[in-house]
Amino acid sequence: MFNTLGNLLSLTTFGESHGVAYGGIINNFPAGLTVDLEKVQYELNRRKPGQSAIVTQRKESDTVKFLSGIFDGKTTGTPIGFIIENENQKSKDYDHIAGAYRPSHADFTYDQKFGFRDHRGGGKSSARETMNWVVAGALAKQLLPEIEINAYVSSVGDIFCEKPYQALDFSQTESNDVRCPDAETAEKMIARIKEIKKEGNTIGGTITCVIKNVPVGIGEPIFSKLQAELAKAMLNINACKGFEYGSGFCGAKMTGKEHNDQFNTDFSTKSNLSGGIQGGISNGMDIYFRVAFKPVATILRPQDSIDKEGNPVIVEGKGRHDPCVVPRAVPVVESLAAFVLADLFLINKTRNINNF
Amino acid sequence: MFNTLGNLLSLTTFGESHGVAYGGIINNFPAGLTVDLEKVQYELNRRKPGQSAIVTQRKESDTVKFLSGIFDGKTTGTPIGFIIENENQKSKDYDHIAGAYRPSHADFTYDQKFGFRDHRGGGKSSARETMNWVVAGALAKQLLPEIEINAYVSSVGDIFCEKPYQALDFSQTESNDVRCPDAETAEKMIARIKEIKKEGNTIGGTITCVIKNVPVGIGEPIFSKLQAELAKAMLNINACKGFEYGSGFCGAKMTGKEHNDQFNTDFSTKSNLSGGIQGGISNGMDIYFRVAFKPVATILRPQDSIDKEGNPVIVEGKGRHDPCVVPRAVPVVESLAAFVLADLFLINKTRNINNF
Amino acid sequence: MFNTLGNLLSLTTFGESHGVAYGGIINNFPAGLTVDLEKVQYELNRRKPGQSAIVTQRKESDTVKFLSGIFDGKTTGTPIGFIIENENQKSKDYDHIAGAYRPSHADFTYDQKFGFRDHRGGGKSSARETMNWVVAGALAKQLLPEIEINAYVSSVGDIFCEKPYQALDFSQTESNDVRCPDAETAEKMIARIKEIKKEGNTIGGTITCVIKNVPVGIGEPIFSKLQAELAKAMLNINACKGFEYGSGFCGAKMTGKEHNDQFNTDFSTKSNLSGGIQGGISNGMDIYFRVAFKPVATILRPQDSIDKEGNPVIVEGKGRHDPCVVPRAVPVVESLAAFVLADLFLINKTRNINNF
Amino acid sequence: MFNTLGNLLSLTTFGESHGVAYGGIINNFPAGLTVDLEKVQYELNRRKPGQSAIVTQRKESDTVKFLSGIFDGKTTGTPIGFIIENENQKSKDYDHIAGAYRPSHADFTYDQKFGFRDHRGGGKSSARETMNWVVAGALAKQLLPEIEINAYVSSVGDIFCEKPYQALDFSQTESNDVRCPDAETAEKMIARIKEIKKEGNTIGGTITCVIKNVPVGIGEPIFSKLQAELAKAMLNINACKGFEYGSGFCGAKMTGKEHNDQFNTDFSTKSNLSGGIQGGISNGMDIYFRVAFKPVATILRPQDSIDKEGNPVIVEGKGRHDPCVVPRAVPVVESLAAFVLADLFLINKTRNINNF
Repeated sequence: MFNTLGNLLSLTTFGESHGVAYGGIINNFPAGLTVDLEKVQYELNRRKPGQSAIVTQRKESDTVKFLSGIFDGKTTGTPIGFIIENENQKSKDYDHIAGAYRPSHADFTYDQKFGFRDHRGGGKSSARETMNWVVAGALAKQLLPEIEINAYVSSVGDIFCEKPYQALDFSQTESNDVRCPDAETAEKMIARIKEIKKEGNTIGGTITCVIKNVPVGIGEPIFSKLQAELAKAMLNINACKGFEYGSGFCGAKMTGKEHNDQFNTDFSTKSNLSGGIQGGISNGMDIYFRVAFKPVATILRPQDSIDKEGNPVIVEGKGRHDPCVVPRAVPVVESLAAFVLADLFLINKTRNINNF
Repeated sequence: MFNTLGNLLSLTTFGESHGVAYGGIINNFPAGLTVDLEKVQYELNRRKPGQSAIVTQRKESDTVKFLSGIFDGKTTGTPIGFIIENENQKSKDYDHIAGAYRPSHADFTYDQKFGFRDHRGGGKSSARETMNWVVAGALAKQLLPEIEINAYVSSVGDIFCEKPYQALDFSQTESNDVRCPDAETAEKMIARIKEIKKEGNTIGGTITCVIKNVPVGIGEPIFSKLQAELAKAMLNINACKGFEYGSGFCGAKMTGKEHNDQFNTDFSTKSNLSGGIQGGISNGMDIYFRVAFKPVATILRPQDSIDKEGNPVIVEGKGRHDPCVVPRAVPVVESLAAFVLADLFLINKTRNINNF
Repeated sequence: MFNTLGNLLSLTTFGESHGVAYGGIINNFPAGLTVDLEKVQYELNRRKPGQSAIVTQRKESDTVKFLSGIFDGKTTGTPIGFIIENENQKSKDYDHIAGAYRPSHADFTYDQKFGFRDHRGGGKSSARETMNWVVAGALAKQLLPEIEINAYVSSVGDIFCEKPYQALDFSQTESNDVRCPDAETAEKMIARIKEIKKEGNTIGGTITCVIKNVPVGIGEPIFSKLQAELAKAMLNINACKGFEYGSGFCGAKMTGKEHNDQFNTDFSTKSNLSGGIQGGISNGMDIYFRVAFKPVATILRPQDSIDKEGNPVIVEGKGRHDPCVVPRAVPVVESLAAFVLADLFLINKTRNINNF
Repeated sequence: MFNTLGNLLSLTTFGESHGVAYGGIINNFPAGLTVDLEKVQYELNRRKPGQSAIVTQRKESDTVKFLSGIFDGKTTGTPIGFIIENENQKSKDYDHIAGAYRPSHADFTYDQKFGFRDHRGGGKSSARETMNWVVAGALAKQLLPEIEINAYVSSVGDIFCEKPYQALDFSQTESNDVRCPDAETAEKMIARIKEIKKEGNTIGGTITCVIKNVPVGIGEPIFSKLQAELAKAMLNINACKGFEYGSGFCGAKMTGKEHNDQFNTDFSTKSNLSGGIQGGISNGMDIYFRVAFKPVATILRPQDSIDKEGNPVIVEGKGRHDPCVVPRAVPVVESLAAFVLADLFLINKTRNINNF
C-alpha cells in the first residue's frame, strides 16, 4: 500500500505543519506487550525543536497522546491511534511564500501534482511529519528489546568522525548537542554549525546507524530484502540523499578476495563488510548503514526565485529553521530502523513451519 | 505486499537458478498498449550470460515467452504472465557446496531462515532472478515512451568515468563490452576486469542512471517518495550496497547556499543538485542516481569456510561466474527504474480530480 | 493490507467503545475536491444513538473533527485525519462481564486471540467503530456526485417490505424512525421493534441498497470484482450474516433462459437480474444488493453463560442497547458502498491508456 | 493489493481461456512443508471438464506443472510458480461473437473497461481461471492438515438437500456426479440437470461448505473478519450471486433470545447459529456457509442480442458448456475457503507476543 510504512506491521499518518495536529495509526501491532509510554515521549524529546542552541528555536512540546490500542498498560492487538497537537504555529511567517516557490523546496512540485497546496510551514512536506515516525519507532523498539539500535552523527559538512563505530561509546551520543559520541569531533561539529548559523546558512551531514543483536533470518528474499526496506525508509526522510550499508560505496572499489567475510566456526564472520545481511536476510552480525542529508533549503538570506506565474521574486527564510538537520534526525533514523525490523521480524514468524 | 515489486502496477516472480524456469506476472498493466516484444528480448539479451569475454560464459538463450495478457499485439488489462526456461544448468558444479557455506553468500542465511535451501546455483538467491525484472521493466518502458532512461557503468574498482553525465553520449553505451559510454574509460575498465578475471578474483563497480523527460508530479508525498521507491528497487539487486541521487553523499558536505537550485522563469532550475525530485515528487529536471555494487562473492580460488555443522572446509568456486557484475547489471538498473516510474505514474492518475 | 479498508483509496481506523476517541485516516483521497463537512456530520447523525425511540438511548454527540488533509475547503491529496471523541461512557455497566463471556459476543474469541481484552463496552468489537466508516463513506460519496446510493430497511423479523425497490420513493426513507420508505410497512416494523424492546429482546432484519448512475467499467476482473469488494465490506459490519446482489439466492433456483438479461440497442438491458454487474464490472444498470443482520446479542434478560475459567455464571445486559440494529445500519451500508465504489473508481482511472 | 487473493499468503494468477496457458504464483507460502502434488492434481480433476455426463464435454487434461518453490519434496519458502497448459481450444466456436455481446456475459463490460477484449472462450472472464485457485487451495489445505473442509451441492434449481449438514456423510460427496452426499437428492438433481441440458437450457444452484477443527483465533477484528474474507473470495467465483454464513438470511428473521448460542463449560456452544465465528474470529465451532450460483449464461438456443454498434443480432451458444455450474464448483469453493483460512492462520502467528 503506497503512502503507508511497513508491510504487515504498518504505520499510516496524517498532519501538516500548521494544521490542527499530527498523528497516526499503528496497525497490526501484536497484543500483549507491556509498553512504557514515557520512553516514547523521551524519543520525541530527542527530536523536539528548541532542545539546544544548534537547532530551530520553534517552541513545541510535541506531546504524544495515545487514543486506543493500549489497555491496562498492554497492547491489545487492535490499532494504536495517537495524536500530537500543533501548538506554536506562526502561519504569518509564511504569507510571503503563499504564491512563491522557494528554491529546493517542495512548493512547486506539490502545486503541480495536487493543483494547490497548504503553504503554511510547508504543509505536508514539513519534516514535522517525522514526529509520527518516532512514535511508531519507539513502540517498535519495545517489541524487540534485545536489539540495540544506535545512530549518531558521523559527519557535519567536511568534519567527519574518523573512528570506526566499534571504537565509539554510544552511551556518549546524548552527552552533547550534535549527537556524535566522540567528544572531540562533536565539539568541532558544534562550532561549525554555530558558524554556519551565524551566516544564515545551513549545512549537510551524515548519520551512521548500528544495529546489534538482530536474530538471524530477518528480511525477505526477493523484493523485501532487509537492506531494501531500510533504504526505502531512510530515503523517505526529508533531505535524505543517499544510503549505503556495510562496505557501501567503498565496497564498489574492492575485489572479492578483499571483500569476502570469512566464517568463524560459530557461524559469525571474521570481518563484516557485508554489514550483517546476506541475500537480504540478517546473518546475526552487526547491521550498519550510513545516511546522507543535504543542507536544509531554507536559508535566512534573500534568494532569487519565482512566483506561481514564473515572475521573478525574492524569497527570504523567516521563521525558525535548523542550520543542520542531522542532530535532530538521529532519533528519526533509529525509529525507522526499528519499525522496519519489527515489520520484517513479524513477517518472519510466518515463513517456516518448523518455527510455528 | 512484501516480496512483490510495485504498489499499483505490480510484479510477482518465481524461479530458481537450477529449477525448471523463471517467470512472473505483471499485474494491473493498463490495457490498450501496443507492445513490441522484440524490444523485451533485446533487453534480456543485454543482460544475458556469455555475451562478451568479460562476463560469465554460462550458455543460456534467456528467451522469454508470453503466456497471457496480450491479444492482437495489445495489452488487454489482464495479468501478463511470462516464462523463461532454464537450459544450461550444471547442478553437479554445486554438489560440493550442498552442505557448505560459501563466504559472503546467502547459503547460511537461507538455511537458517527456511530450514534448508535449494543449493543448486544459489537457488532463489541467484541473480538469474533479475531476468524477470528486465522483462517487466522492458514493458514498463513502453508504457512511458517519452521518458528516456539511460544507465551506464560509471566505475569499475578504482577506475572512474570522470566526465559528468551531461558530457556523455549515451548512444555509445552499447558500443563496448563494459557499457561505459566514454570509450577511453571503457577500455581501461575492460582491461581491469580481464586482469581480475585472470587472477580468479572479482571486482566491484558503480552504475549511474539518468532519466530524462519525466513529467512533473510523479512520486508520493509520505512513504512512497520517488527516491524511496527507486532506492528500494535498487537495493534489491544482488550485490548492491548503496544508492545516492542528485548530490548524494557529496551533498552532505555542502551548504544550503551552494546546494539550492535556483529557478528559471520557465520553472526549470539553473542547477540540479536536487536530482530532479523535490519533496518526493519529480520536478521535470533530469533524475539521476548512482548505485554501488560489491565484488561478486564467488571467486575461483580456494577459500576457508565452514559446513553446516561449523566444521572447517575449503570451498572453491566452480562453474561460470562474472568477474564483475556491473556490465550486465546496466539493463537491470534501467528496468527497475522504468518499473518504479510506471507504477508511480499510474498512481498519479488518481491523485488530482482536476486531471480526471 | 489486512485490517484496512480499500485497495488504493484506503481507510485505517482506531478506537474502542470506552477509549478516548475513535478516528481514522483516509489515505490517497484525491486532491482538489471541495468538501461539505456538514454533510459528513449529517450522515453521522443518521447513525447516532438516541435519535429515536427504537434505538439505544446512549447519549453521544458523535461529532467529527477533521485534523488534516483539507485546506481552504478543498482536499489537498494528503492524508485526511479525523477524530470523534467518546463522551458518554458508563464503563461500570460492564464491570460484571470483565471476567465473563456473553453468549454470541466476541468476548471469548478476543480473549483467546489476543490473550486479554478491553471488556468495557465491547472494546474494539463494539459497533461504534462503524462511525469511522460513515465519515469515510460520506467523503467518498462527495467524490462521486453523480452516483446515487440509497439503502433502506427491507425487513424487520418477518415483516418484509414487499414492494420492489423500483416502486419505492427513497425521499421517504428518512421520514420515519425505521428507515423503510414504505410508510405502511414502516409502521408495522416500528410496532414490532417496540414490542420486542418491551420484552427486553432483540430482532434481526435486512437492508437493501440501490446504487444508480454507476459509470460502466467499475470493478476489477479477477480477485477484486465489484460484488466481491461490496460483499467483503458488508460482511465486516457487526451482526451481518449474509450478502446477495441482483437475483441473489433466488437466482440459484432459476434457469438461464429466465435469468439472462436481454440487451436494448442502447446497451442497457431489459431486465436486470445481473444486478448491474457483469464479470465483476459495472454495466451501467442499477446495482442492488441485500444484507442480512442477526438480532443484537445483548438482551436485557438473564442468560446462562460461563466465566473465563468455564464456571457457570448468569449474565444480564445492562447499559443501553439497540433492540434492532438495522435502522442505524442504513447509513453504514451506504457509506461502505460509497467507499468501495470510490476505491474501484480511482483504480479504474489507471486501467486503460486510452482514458489517460 | 487488488487483483490478488490473500493478504499475507497471496495468489496472483494469469491466463485466458484460449491463451497459451493458465498459471499463478503462490507467494509467501511457508517453508518446510512436505507437499503431495498428486493431491493437487486430484483436486484439479474434480474441477475438470468432461468428468461426467452432466458437465461440459470440453476435453482438457488440466495438468498442473510446478516450476519453482518446491525442492526435495518440500516447500522452500520462496514463490511457488505453476502452469496449466490449454489444450483443447476451439477458438472458431467464438468467431461469431467477436463483435457481438452475449446476454448476461462480461463481453460488454470488458469491451467498455479495457477498450477491446480477447473474445475467444470469454478470454479472462472464463471460469477456467478457477483452475488456478484450485491449485493454490489444494496446497493451502496441506498447510492446515487438521482442518476438514467439505463442500457439497445443497440445491439445484428448486431441488434442495433438506437434511442439515450434520446428518450427511461427506465421504459420499464424490460418490455421484452432482456432488450431493445424500444419494436420493443427488439422483433428483442429476435428473433435473439432464432434463435442462436436453432443453439447451441451464440452471442455478447452491453449495454449502462446512469447515471443522478450525483453531480458535483465526480472523482479524476490523476489516479482515474471517466471514468478510470468505465472502470476498466466494463472490469472486464466476456466477456467484450470494453468500451467507451461520444463520444467514434466516437469522435476520429471528430474535436475540432464539439466536444466541449458549456456552458449554468447555467453551463450546450448545447451538451454533453464529456459524463458528464471533467478532470476525473463529471460536472453534464448525464454520459453515452457503453460496448461491446463477444459471450459466450461455444457453444452446438462439437469443436476441446486439453487436458492438448496438445493432440487433442473434447469438447462439456453440461450444461445450455446463448446464449447471455447481458440481464442478464444489472443489473451487473448498479451495478458496482453504486459501482464506491459511492466509488468516499465518497472519494470526503474528498477533500475540505470548505465542511467539
